[in-house]
Amino acid sequence: MTQARWKQLTEWPLAIIAFVFLVAYAWEIIGELEGPAERALDTVIWITWLVFVVDYLVNLALAERRWHWFWRHILDLLIVVLPMLRPLRLLRLVTLLTILNRTAGSAFRGRVVVYVVGASMLLVFVASLAVLDTERDAPGATIVTIGDALWWAFVTITTVGYGDYTPVTTEGRIIAVGLMLSGIALLGVVTATIASWIVERVAERDEDERAATRREVRALGEQIARLQATLEKKGA
Amino acid sequence: MTQARWKQLTEWPLAIIAFVFLVAYAWEIIGELEGPAERALDTVIWITWLVFVVDYLVNLALAERRWHWFWRHILDLLIVVLPMLRPLRLLRLVTLLTILNRTAGSAFRGRVVVYVVGASMLLVFVASLAVLDTERDAPGATIVTIGDALWWAFVTITTVGYGDYTPVTTEGRIIAVGLMLSGIALLGVVTATIASWIVERVAERDEDERAATRREVRALGEQIARLQATLEKKGA
Amino acid sequence: MTQARWKQLTEWPLAIIAFVFLVAYAWEIIGELEGPAERALDTVIWITWLVFVVDYLVNLALAERRWHWFWRHILDLLIVVLPMLRPLRLLRLVTLLTILNRTAGSAFRGRVVVYVVGASMLLVFVASLAVLDTERDAPGATIVTIGDALWWAFVTITTVGYGDYTPVTTEGRIIAVGLMLSGIALLGVVTATIASWIVERVAERDEDERAATRREVRALGEQIARLQATLEKKGA
Amino acid sequence: MTQARWKQLTEWPLAIIAFVFLVAYAWEIIGELEGPAERALDTVIWITWLVFVVDYLVNLALAERRWHWFWRHILDLLIVVLPMLRPLRLLRLVTLLTILNRTAGSAFRGRVVVYVVGASMLLVFVASLAVLDTERDAPGATIVTIGDALWWAFVTITTVGYGDYTPVTTEGRIIAVGLMLSGIALLGVVTATIASWIVERVAERDEDERAATRREVRALGEQIARLQATLEKKGA
Repeated sequence: MTQARWKQLTEWPLAIIAFVFLVAYAWEIIGELEGPAERALDTVIWITWLVFVVDYLVNLALAERRWHWFWRHILDLLIVVLPMLRPLRLLRLVTLLTILNRTAGSAFRGRVVVYVVGASMLLVFVASLAVLDTERDAPGATIVTIGDALWWAFVTITTVGYGDYTPVTTEGRIIAVGLMLSGIALLGVVTATIASWIVERVAERDEDERAATRREVRALGEQIARLQATLEKKGA
Repeated sequence: MTQARWKQLTEWPLAIIAFVFLVAYAWEIIGELEGPAERALDTVIWITWLVFVVDYLVNLALAERRWHWFWRHILDLLIVVLPMLRPLRLLRLVTLLTILNRTAGSAFRGRVVVYVVGASMLLVFVASLAVLDTERDAPGATIVTIGDALWWAFVTITTVGYGDYTPVTTEGRIIAVGLMLSGIALLGVVTATIASWIVERVAERDEDERAATRREVRALGEQIARLQATLEKKGA
Repeated sequence: MTQARWKQLTEWPLAIIAFVFLVAYAWEIIGELEGPAERALDTVIWITWLVFVVDYLVNLALAERRWHWFWRHILDLLIVVLPMLRPLRLLRLVTLLTILNRTAGSAFRGRVVVYVVGASMLLVFVASLAVLDTERDAPGATIVTIGDALWWAFVTITTVGYGDYTPVTTEGRIIAVGLMLSGIALLGVVTATIASWIVERVAERDEDERAATRREVRALGEQIARLQATLEKKGA
Repeated sequence: MTQARWKQLTEWPLAIIAFVFLVAYAWEIIGELEGPAERALDTVIWITWLVFVVDYLVNLALAERRWHWFWRHILDLLIVVLPMLRPLRLLRLVTLLTILNRTAGSAFRGRVVVYVVGASMLLVFVASLAVLDTERDAPGATIVTIGDALWWAFVTITTVGYGDYTPVTTEGRIIAVGLMLSGIALLGVVTATIASWIVERVAERDEDERAATRREVRALGEQIARLQATLEKKGA
């Protein structure tokens, strides 16, 4: 079996597994579960983790240029081998987004918009969960409910930054920095997409004033070729 | 009667109704009315709501492909059938802006600027009213006067976010998130419009160095056609 | 004398007067002057105001289409007739910037950068003065020294918005909103200028791959014309 | 020896010296060293400073048009002669980044990204050190550990600005303003790079619809020249 075939086969199952992981992770954090319920969700999370480990190993085994693949996917390795670092585990969810990317419409700009909106929503939700998990039991923490965490995540990703809720733990701050940088990227993509659209609309002026295209120059070439043919026939 | 005809007929009346709704809504919230005055304004608000319900139903009845129209205008339905949710009701005011859009000048970039400035002003005002209405009676709220609310709305939409006033209720925070996202869009449109203008101005260099246009290539084609004609006449 | 001639004659004197006004205004606010010193500076400020009134009236008198000019320069009138509103008076200083604009280099992008940097610096300084003047004696105000005011102005125009210093008076907040909107414009211009530069640099690829220019198409046309001439001469 | 040769020879050694300076400076501030250890690091810092003084003087001596070079490198002089102002000293580290710039890949956009990410990381780290050094002993300061300083620097450069940590000294605020302006530039570069990429991708439509290139027009010209040759041969 080739790696491409494996990827094609596992695409949807892995997206579903990632979604299951997200639900279990969210449930565990928001529900503040204890006893058997917590153990059940923990089991689900460990199984989803195991699936990703297997997927990583199979990919490594099937890769044509193993070392090349290994170094280009070093982040995948870190996500898989460092499952104790909960926030990093959540990076697996980008799998969901690559699916989204592929199934979106054919127009490039529309795809960018869908991708960015989807990624931002997921990021806000996942960062809220991770920050809540990290901050909840820290002394002096202000982010102690999922509502606060979501509010904080929106205030941060939009770079508004009221400062009514701020993370106080180191892990919480690392998550916050990730969210701020995503906010800058989000702003960049929104602006760039609008700019591209405006530039295109402004350029749609009088048809005669548009740049000459290759097709038109080719038509000219054919006209000259016909002239050459006429001339040669005459001379004959 | 066709749906297009209905829309054309109701365009201006509906814009006026939307404006009446805005005035009544603003008056009720800012004036903190009681007794008969409040009841009078409530009546006006309910009448404007009724007008929009009728408009929605007539549109649905006149639509050629009813289900298609229904799904594409699901937001219109929500705005109309959920009048209890006050902030959402205010979305009706975008009617005013589509009018604005149509009557603005012919230059595309100018229209974008007018639209964005208008939409932002309206948004800031409407969000101030909605937040004030929601927050005023909440325990621990800081946004308790229209002045505070307007100040907070400007601080939020520009993504400055001092944090001297922040919403504390869930409804207030949802409105705030909407305002933040609008702020990002506002920033995007401002930047994109300036970028489009600068790119165009920078491109206005030496006339000879501009991209060849279709008109010029067509002129070349005609020149070659004359050549062909000359050649054929000679051979004759 | 024509209006154009008057404008040309008064351009530099008015820029100097505007600068004198800025210095006097800044000195009065920062120095917290009392007694004769305050009266002396007040006299200077009133004289600069008088000069601008005279300039406005002469312009109105010399304008060819008086009403047209009046309506297009309504802001100039407001600045001149409302001298009690101190912050608005400072708008006169844009005169300095139009000078800057004209004397900057020929490259359009460079001019935009010079203009924006100059305008932002002036704006930050002027807004600091105006806010300090307004806030200093307000109860509960935090902006009470020029250092605080400058720091607050930078925090605001960059849309960082720490919230350690915030205006509490209505006038102070109006100035703040002006500064925030300028911050958005500043961000827009910076981004747009960089974008225009990157787009241009990226487009500077292989010479052969650049868009065909008008000069090249004209050269083709001349080549064909020579062909036509050759053909006609032959046939003769 | 020419100046160009000197620059080429000293490029790598100076980058290493700048790095040594950064390490020594960071160590001294973070470690809060006392006694012999502090003296040792101080010695290292002074030696690195001496190296830069020597480099400046040699460059001045070797410059072809000495006054011209002097004025164009006035900032280099200030950095070298004002070593008491610690934060300014750190500007020397841009040497590291010009190296980075030269060794990055050939694609212009990729180089911009590498440069901006590198510069931002360095800036955040260096600003954290400088602010910590300045603020640590100030009364009422909140930024008193390197963790706080790094967190504050990220919150500032992304223009989020929670306001949970803010500088209170004048030097600290000057550093903060520098960081804010860098944040605006960072946002600008990120947005512009994405915009340039999107514009290019959107333009990659149907091959036939792309603007005619110079190569294609040249091919047309050759076709016509062949026609001219055929015609002349015939007539002979």
